[in-house]
Amino acid sequence: MLIVHKYGGTSVGNLERIENVASRVAKAKREGNDLVVVVSAMSGETNKLISYAEHFSAIPSKREMDMLLSSGERVTASLLAIALQSMGIDAIAMSGRQAGIKTNDNHTYARIESIDPTAMQNEIAKGKVVVVAGFQGITEEGNATTLGRGGSDLSAVAIAGALNADACEIYSDVDGIYTTDPRIEPKAKKMDFISYDEMLELASLGAKVLQNRSVELAKKLNVKIIAKSSFSDAEGTVIGEESKDMEAVLVSGIALDRNQARVTIRDVVDRPGVAAEIFTKLADEHINVDMIIQNASVDHGTTNLGFTLAQSDINRAKAVIEGFDHDIGSMDFDDSVCKVSVVGVGMKSHAGVAATAFKAMAKENINIEMISTSEIKVSMIIAEKYAELAVRTLHSTYGLDK
Amino acid sequence: MLIVHKYGGTSVGNLERIENVASRVAKAKREGNDLVVVVSAMSGETNKLISYAEHFSAIPSKREMDMLLSSGERVTASLLAIALQSMGIDAIAMSGRQAGIKTNDNHTYARIESIDPTAMQNEIAKGKVVVVAGFQGITEEGNATTLGRGGSDLSAVAIAGALNADACEIYSDVDGIYTTDPRIEPKAKKMDFISYDEMLELASLGAKVLQNRSVELAKKLNVKIIAKSSFSDAEGTVIGEESKDMEAVLVSGIALDRNQARVTIRDVVDRPGVAAEIFTKLADEHINVDMIIQNASVDHGTTNLGFTLAQSDINRAKAVIEGFDHDIGSMDFDDSVCKVSVVGVGMKSHAGVAATAFKAMAKENINIEMISTSEIKVSMIIAEKYAELAVRTLHSTYGLDK
Repeated sequence: MLIVHKYGGTSVGNLERIENVASRVAKAKREGNDLVVVVSAMSGETNKLISYAEHFSAIPSKREMDMLLSSGERVTASLLAIALQSMGIDAIAMSGRQAGIKTNDNHTYARIESIDPTAMQNEIAKGKVVVVAGFQGITEEGNATTLGRGGSDLSAVAIAGALNADACEIYSDVDGIYTTDPRIEPKAKKMDFISYDEMLELASLGAKVLQNRSVELAKKLNVKIIAKSSFSDAEGTVIGEESKDMEAVLVSGIALDRNQARVTIRDVVDRPGVAAEIFTKLADEHINVDMIIQNASVDHGTTNLGFTLAQSDINRAKAVIEGFDHDIGSMDFDDSVCKVSVVGVGMKSHAGVAATAFKAMAKENINIEMISTSEIKVSMIIAEKYAELAVRTLHSTYGLDK
Repeated sequence: MLIVHKYGGTSVGNLERIENVASRVAKAKREGNDLVVVVSAMSGETNKLISYAEHFSAIPSKREMDMLLSSGERVTASLLAIALQSMGIDAIAMSGRQAGIKTNDNHTYARIESIDPTAMQNEIAKGKVVVVAGFQGITEEGNATTLGRGGSDLSAVAIAGALNADACEIYSDVDGIYTTDPRIEPKAKKMDFISYDEMLELASLGAKVLQNRSVELAKKLNVKIIAKSSFSDAEGTVIGEESKDMEAVLVSGIALDRNQARVTIRDVVDRPGVAAEIFTKLADEHINVDMIIQNASVDHGTTNLGFTLAQSDINRAKAVIEGFDHDIGSMDFDDSVCKVSVVGVGMKSHAGVAATAFKAMAKENINIEMISTSEIKVSMIIAEKYAELAVRTLHSTYGLDK
């Protein structure tokens, strides 16, 4: 089997932990696997380098930031290769450039454009473990780039895709994806399997494990991800393509997003295009709008418009909406709301999942302010004070604690 | 003027010092110069990374060591470029690879094979200050290499040569080359000028400022070096080609080397080739022999052989010489000696410099055990207990304190 391992910053956070990672890799190699290992910078290093740069400039040049930040992963990759060699495992360290990772020149948030896996394949063919500095690539002009936060996951998934690897094991300090946040519901269970689409909808549950960009890429390249802990031998959670017999799983997990705010715009002039204009302007400012509710026009030719967005975008959204003062009455922002979501591929073929959720909420006297549904998700905006109660109620309603 | 600046680890040892370096570079740029700035890693960083690697292996792989160690200079180069930009100076950071520095693949002690200055020249033409990560290059295969201790000086001199720069200013925490070690003779004076050849002979005086490899390369490429302090505005010492009117300078400085040991081999069989064999074997072991004295054969067909070498080579030299036990009587090692040297290009055309030194030593009752001379140097092996006295006596004998 050809397997890509990826170890995050906490897993390589000090020399003892790098040694621990080396032991795991050595074991997998001795079991007969071919291995590429992608590593992050030691935890804290990237933030330290950012703080150094910010000592000099509030907006440091992105090209130089990338040269600066890409050094951390080079250190870890070199050290892990040395640690492996000292255990008798033939290993070679490669920078993103050497691993053939070409990106566009959108510095600090570059996109992988292509991977030339020849160099990695040549070393694998010699029996070597290839250790790759994650989070980085190189532009056509030869400048170092980084892929943004969580970029080492992207590196690992992209490499697994380019090498047609059997699996991409993403190691962190969490041993998999849970049916909900165990800090809220201690009865939360680790899942054995979750589909790409469910994982994308459950982003908040996997946020500490891997980011949505990586899941999207894995889905596109059909890379099987296994989320595991580098501190235990627990099985982990497989993230992959849903298969036929998976339809039995009605609901996979309950996600909670506290970073929500609700905007209500009253007395919007009811002529075609006003709402569209508002949302276009918000999109121009890269403000993501989530749920939208527009009431039917009432008596005096105006309507009310409600939508949700990330709390962190509130101030920028206010500025945009104030530009429409001739077409709207008043506006109102409420950041004491949260979004709770029920996710499961089984919903596609089973009716009644949403109704069950609404009933459960009603039973606890939780008012649902907004609802949005997709093929595999039911999301509800509720008052934030009910967040934990709602999560626990839904978790038990769908039998996830069983 | 096109000037190369080089700042060592102490000069960029923390963020405030990097800011100080940026101010110096900005000033030189605003004065109308074109600039390339070569930087070392922040002081302590390289040793920290070495200790990390040695945690895993006593003999870490040299290829991976180079990838590891070359990261430190990339950090400093990026930070200095960011600091310059924040002062309104257009600057660009380059790794050794990006600066076009090609080396052989002798990892951790690579030799620069060529420099393609095109990328640097293009950025200079745009008015940018080019900040280059020192100490590093890249092999034909694309692997990062490092140039050994003091390698950033080499980078700077080689770049100055490739760009045909007007000067290569080497900044450290010492403000130039002194006539002798000021810790021994407080009356030591900073020199305004010293020739390459004198500098090479006075290596111990310049050891903290720049290494012999760099002086040799500067001589070969005819690069004018200026040794300066990054912590003061003092003038510094120019290291360059000696000119005609320099003949007036009889003696430039007094050097002391404590890392000396004297070896005496008694009763060497006096047949042709025995001494040659011993020295060949020592050379095979990379043991440098400095001064050699062979007494004329006496009565019973044997001779005595004396020579000096570095104290640190004693044990390895013993092992070699023991292999000759059938051809020699006894051997004796004395590591309580030192070498004091009088250096000056003026000696070439002035007689009596050596005689003056011998007289001065005799006056202080210092016995000279061995003597060697070159065109511009008189070196004497004496008991180490007289080291400071000899240095001070010679320093005043030649009027260097005036």
